[in-house]
Amino acid sequence: MTEFELIQQYFAQIGRQRDDVVVGVGDDAAVCSVPGNHELVVTTDLLIAGVHFPDNTPAHAIGYKALAVNLSDLAAMGATPAWFTMTLSLPESNASWLQEFSQGLGELADASGITLIGGDTTRGALAVGIQAYGFVATGSAILRSGARAGDCIFVTGHLGDAALGLLGESGELALSADEQKIFSRRLRYPTPRNQEGMTLRGVASAMIDVSDGLAADLGHILEASRVGASVRLMDLPVSPRYRDRLEQVGMDPALAGGDDYELCFTVPPERIERCRELAAAWTCGVAEIGSIEKDPGLRVLDEAGHPYESARAGYNHFSS
Amino acid sequence: MTEFELIQQYFAQIGRQRDDVVVGVGDDAAVCSVPGNHELVVTTDLLIAGVHFPDNTPAHAIGYKALAVNLSDLAAMGATPAWFTMTLSLPESNASWLQEFSQGLGELADASGITLIGGDTTRGALAVGIQAYGFVATGSAILRSGARAGDCIFVTGHLGDAALGLLGESGELALSADEQKIFSRRLRYPTPRNQEGMTLRGVASAMIDVSDGLAADLGHILEASRVGASVRLMDLPVSPRYRDRLEQVGMDPALAGGDDYELCFTVPPERIERCRELAAAWTCGVAEIGSIEKDPGLRVLDEAGHPYESARAGYNHFSS
Repeated sequence: MTEFELIQQYFAQIGRQRDDVVVGVGDDAAVCSVPGNHELVVTTDLLIAGVHFPDNTPAHAIGYKALAVNLSDLAAMGATPAWFTMTLSLPESNASWLQEFSQGLGELADASGITLIGGDTTRGALAVGIQAYGFVATGSAILRSGARAGDCIFVTGHLGDAALGLLGESGELALSADEQKIFSRRLRYPTPRNQEGMTLRGVASAMIDVSDGLAADLGHILEASRVGASVRLMDLPVSPRYRDRLEQVGMDPALAGGDDYELCFTVPPERIERCRELAAAWTCGVAEIGSIEKDPGLRVLDEAGHPYESARAGYNHFSS
Repeated sequence: MTEFELIQQYFAQIGRQRDDVVVGVGDDAAVCSVPGNHELVVTTDLLIAGVHFPDNTPAHAIGYKALAVNLSDLAAMGATPAWFTMTLSLPESNASWLQEFSQGLGELADASGITLIGGDTTRGALAVGIQAYGFVATGSAILRSGARAGDCIFVTGHLGDAALGLLGESGELALSADEQKIFSRRLRYPTPRNQEGMTLRGVASAMIDVSDGLAADLGHILEASRVGASVRLMDLPVSPRYRDRLEQVGMDPALAGGDDYELCFTVPPERIERCRELAAAWTCGVAEIGSIEKDPGLRVLDEAGHPYESARAGYNHFSS
């Protein structure tokens, strides 16, 4: 199969047709329209087999997640997803692998209203590079640098499930087949919070997606905004399945585990009511976990309000 | 060195500062302004060590060429270069390699007025993915599909030098040290024709860059435009150094060799005078090599006007 045939067969129809794509796949470059009074938001992530996912990961999950992590970056800016490009390096042109990969990619592209406009495929070690493009009204992107002392800190959905999935898969935590299936699904198929991110334009003062663990990612907001924060450990949102294992695993996977792709954002006091109104419509839910303070650094408090110290040396590999 | 430090040290200053970059490297995504009444042009290429360049290629040349091939795609659309993103996979964080690589990349970025706005670096086999972004006034991108019977076919610069450089490096052609140096430089450091491409907006009816060889790339124009063409072999522009070797190597490297990154474009009869006026200012020169015809297919004619057939079986590896 030539590169051209491969693209036609597996990738020409990824995502819905969009009127703002003037020239899509097939010329030297794609040509697209950005709406008036809007800015373009651009992000890129590279996933390498054996580094970002185990070599035995199903192709469907690789295609899905490669796009999901980029959509999550758009969500964290409050951007509306529009297009994506892809560089795909493959050891061989394997039809069933390509079929599954393009299906996983296509399902999420359809669900998100984002469409593939170009790319490059070549022979080499398995690696997927995706670049995602979105829009925000001029000046309305939600940056990491906007948090101010007094702002409340919120997190969407649940934290730590992906970390438990990884612990179970590596044999470090004994899970039932049912639990493993559910946690692994959260690890392999994160839901990027694009709708939630878009509604937070003009509401959140700063935002990031939780890819490296809440402590590390909130730390990026604190650094960019030159502020500090206190977070109440027991207010971190965890799933009912996680809660069933709480005594055994503690809160470290929720505090410092990665790969959840939830949104962490800050809201000034005068906009908290508006935020709660908006969040009432979110099926993923939202939790208030702490507040931004003037003193630099992240302070994690336990149930008694004392500084939290991890009791489990075994979870140190979560610190990043 | 952390990924953050690596980016700060080697990549934060690539390209000039641009007013249209609202948020550059360092947040979840970059935010950029596209000028009013303009469309965004997006292209991406992935270069893998051992596939697209020999493993011993100097880092400076890899950085330069990875950007050059993408700038050439923008040139082929008539687009004005604006920004680029990069995904870089590296086996190890080698300071001298990174220093040279970022210098090669930075020199061409500065010369082209394009600036790095984001990316992703990770550990893995050496691979460089670059995505380049440019603008065209709405509706003025020069596509492959616009050629019509009666249009003249032009090519910028010289063809075949890069192919001779490759033949010399592989030992298939004995070259003097001086010749090898010059031809290898054309192979490693192609000059993307962005200025020339931009001036052809409203003049050329179709355009492509010559990356896979003139015959193959002109073939893409013919296919997209549903036309054919006749090309006069002896009118293909070759350099004085190539001409010195003409008797030995023939015209096949110019007709079918790749990696020259010149522009091949078509011009309707009524705009040829305008095209010649514009081209008079180009230091790379331009050659008229044939014309677009109604009958599908590419006809290559020798000096006597007869269909050309390659006499040298040894050059068959050029056909693509």
